[in-house]
Amino acid sequence: MEVLEAIYGRRSVRQYTSEPVTREEVLEIVQAGSWAPSGLNNQPWRFAIVSDDEKRRALAGFTKYRHILEGAPVSIAVFCDRAAMYNDTKDHQSVGACLQNMLLAAHALGLGAVWLGEILKSADKVRELLALPESLELMAVVAVGRPAEFTRTGDRKDLDELIVGEY
Amino acid sequence: MEVLEAIYGRRSVRQYTSEPVTREEVLEIVQAGSWAPSGLNNQPWRFAIVSDDEKRRALAGFTKYRHILEGAPVSIAVFCDRAAMYNDTKDHQSVGACLQNMLLAAHALGLGAVWLGEILKSADKVRELLALPESLELMAVVAVGRPAEFTRTGDRKDLDELIVGEY
Repeated sequence: MEVLEAIYGRRSVRQYTSEPVTREEVLEIVQAGSWAPSGLNNQPWRFAIVSDDEKRRALAGFTKYRHILEGAPVSIAVFCDRAAMYNDTKDHQSVGACLQNMLLAAHALGLGAVWLGEILKSADKVRELLALPESLELMAVVAVGRPAEFTRTGDRKDLDELIVGEY
Repeated sequence: MEVLEAIYGRRSVRQYTSEPVTREEVLEIVQAGSWAPSGLNNQPWRFAIVSDDEKRRALAGFTKYRHILEGAPVSIAVFCDRAAMYNDTKDHQSVGACLQNMLLAAHALGLGAVWLGEILKSADKVRELLALPESLELMAVVAVGRPAEFTRTGDRKDLDELIVGEY
């Protein structure tokens, strides 16, 4: 799939078929994420892959979008490693770039994915559930599966609302 | 260009030929950025396009990577609009996703680009130079031009260093 086609055609997918996602597909998504740029190339992102039924259900209980995580065969929790970070703003931006690579890779692989941020309110519980150290700051959970919903149209502001100046 | 090829093949390009970048190319890069996902679809990104010689040189004076901005025919300053923001972490992540779309689009168009974050130390001066309001928080400057350097190899950690758990 072409880059611009993927960028403009990707949508958040929140409903999935029961067909599993392979480990190879998950690793490709994570690897794509890891090729994002980061300040000083510090690569602060860390990934936890959750496909176990019980763990997925427990994770789902930490967000009001429970039904999405329950329906997704795989969830990938993305963290920022405090030990690798050097600047909150820049590191959070880098993880955003990493997440976008993951979403584009999933889309290119024919999978559907959605970036969930609301679960950050339960960051401590997520870390506890996965037995991960406090040094890992939860950044988002990406739900992944095979799309079971129609592609919706996207909605973005016109460029003339977004361009604040040309010099 | 294929999505995964672009994600793995994109590199920061810091040297450019003197050939100009067209306005259409710049608008495509900005538009690609604008199709990033954002929390509540708040689309907090704003863009200032700098191709005027004098303004570019002045902008270049605000970073230790002066030579990059002086050599690039176009610089795009990316801001987060405080009036549109709802959560610093999530909005900064979204702008990171937007920046990654911009870099991938530039790469797909055969252009070279680099994400400069060091200039954030001069955020006030950048805003002043471009006569933009304080409500716009500088996020990065992206330099864009036609590549005049060899593609270097990339360097990323192995997946087993990045995956902190599988459940």
